Amino acid sequence: MAPEFRPDGRLHGACVGILAGGGPLPAQVARAVEQAGGRVFIIGFQGFAEPGVIGHWPHRMVRLAAAGDILSGLHAHGCRDLVLIGPVKRPSLGSLRPDATGARILARIGRALFAGDDGLLGAIVRVLGEEGFTVRGAHEFLPGSVARRGVLGAVGPDASACSDIVLGRDVVRQLGRLDIGQGCVVQGGLVLAVEALEGTDRMLERVGSLRQPDRPGGVLVKMAKPGQERRADLPTIGPRTVAGAMAAGLRGIAMEAGATLITDPAACIAMADEAGLFLAGIGSGDEKII
Amino acid sequence: MAPEFRPDGRLHGACVGILAGGGPLPAQVARAVEQAGGRVFIIGFQGFAEPGVIGHWPHRMVRLAAAGDILSGLHAHGCRDLVLIGPVKRPSLGSLRPDATGARILARIGRALFAGDDGLLGAIVRVLGEEGFTVRGAHEFLPGSVARRGVLGAVGPDASACSDIVLGRDVVRQLGRLDIGQGCVVQGGLVLAVEALEGTDRMLERVGSLRQPDRPGGVLVKMAKPGQERRADLPTIGPRTVAGAMAAGLRGIAMEAGATLITDPAACIAMADEAGLFLAGIGSGDEKII
Repeated sequence: MAPEFRPDGRLHGACVGILAGGGPLPAQVARAVEQAGGRVFIIGFQGFAEPGVIGHWPHRMVRLAAAGDILSGLHAHGCRDLVLIGPVKRPSLGSLRPDATGARILARIGRALFAGDDGLLGAIVRVLGEEGFTVRGAHEFLPGSVARRGVLGAVGPDASACSDIVLGRDVVRQLGRLDIGQGCVVQGGLVLAVEALEGTDRMLERVGSLRQPDRPGGVLVKMAKPGQERRADLPTIGPRTVAGAMAAGLRGIAMEAGATLITDPAACIAMADEAGLFLAGIGSGDEKII
Repeated sequence: MAPEFRPDGRLHGACVGILAGGGPLPAQVARAVEQAGGRVFIIGFQGFAEPGVIGHWPHRMVRLAAAGDILSGLHAHGCRDLVLIGPVKRPSLGSLRPDATGARILARIGRALFAGDDGLLGAIVRVLGEEGFTVRGAHEFLPGSVARRGVLGAVGPDASACSDIVLGRDVVRQLGRLDIGQGCVVQGGLVLAVEALEGTDRMLERVGSLRQPDRPGGVLVKMAKPGQERRADLPTIGPRTVAGAMAAGLRGIAMEAGATLITDPAACIAMADEAGLFLAGIGSGDEKII
């Protein structure tokens, strides 16, 4: 629990702004901030943030492009540090309906609006910095939810799974350089599926019908993109990912250590142990994988 | 119509063996061989080759792994040159039930059975060479079905489509180096989907729900893998691909010139023209794309 911005790791009543998309992580960040002695103000993006998740804290639900509301809310609560957390689906320009401030900011984001996710998120982080905020990574607040290196549960990958992990890591690194996806599935040397805009859950859905029946089950590999804006879009797994891997007949999940968020580590490990799946935190380089 | 193995481009009654998977291309190769003065004997793989397509010619339907039957049939008809054409789904080892010759050949293919498609097909071509056959590419017999460079129909890609094509070509080349797929879909700088084992048709199916409503439609890019065994697995498009691209809201299809087979060029061009889609044959290098 050590955000780097206070020498003693305490927040001394400072207010951290949380820009919240879907899923449970915004609440986990809010709890972690409070435990470190800070306060939070949550901007919940309409259509993505779940009121049941963020409702416990001071918050405001706003449209994604209502930048005027967002900035005024954050300033009114004295937020200087921000965290962007939880998935937000890339909106269509036609649906954005930006307010006046939003239109100015969209112009500053400019061409990055049409780039891959990493380019877009990088531009948003840059603009927030220009507005006087410091954008922090959720992983700075949730060290217990960051995948550590090695075998996370009771089951480890065998030699053939390790060789699939090495191939999958190569594949995802190549994809990541092109700002495409963060995951792929490999089974016995064969790349079954590669993730682009559809996301991990939908990729796992199609893997069920692509699996090869005559060899050990496949492996899901998730890696951050090289040079990725780690403050905005870390690879994330959760119980739903583990359930998807089980349904697809996989042997396990390998994820980049230090760069993957696990939404509910205890539940993920319990599910994986029960199903005989491995969960492994791996290195990003060419060194030994676990 | 110039298979390279006769100085005059004529086959002088020689018998060409066609190892046939699905689709209409085996019949097109057979017709082309006859027009060049040759004969054919077709091995139709059970479960893939369509009896209505190959039934017009001397043929035998065999299981994929019945290598003894395959080789004896080819030898009995005096075939020296072979063509592998038409899709065959990678079988499971458990379903293969090889005959005695098949078991010996599987042992020679060895580890490549578990590699990507290109490694497997390369090994099959090698083994057929060791058995005394010369494996020819279908494109040697069907020059009229090989995508030529440039705009193939009435519609051409505009500047923004060209920039999507350049990105897509980079993506597919990176994938191809890893022996993954041969295609991807790019829309306005964003990679919507990447093809692995599911194939082009299934990739196009999911693109419909991933398309971005606020920018011009996406582009399908198909390229041969660098170093690919071109005698066994060229990228192929046909009317079904064009229909899938239309349903996915794409603007067009770019394919590697000289290395993509079009199963029914006239029908593809007519469909594309009617729908306002472009079909473009592009270079594989970094030069101007069309």
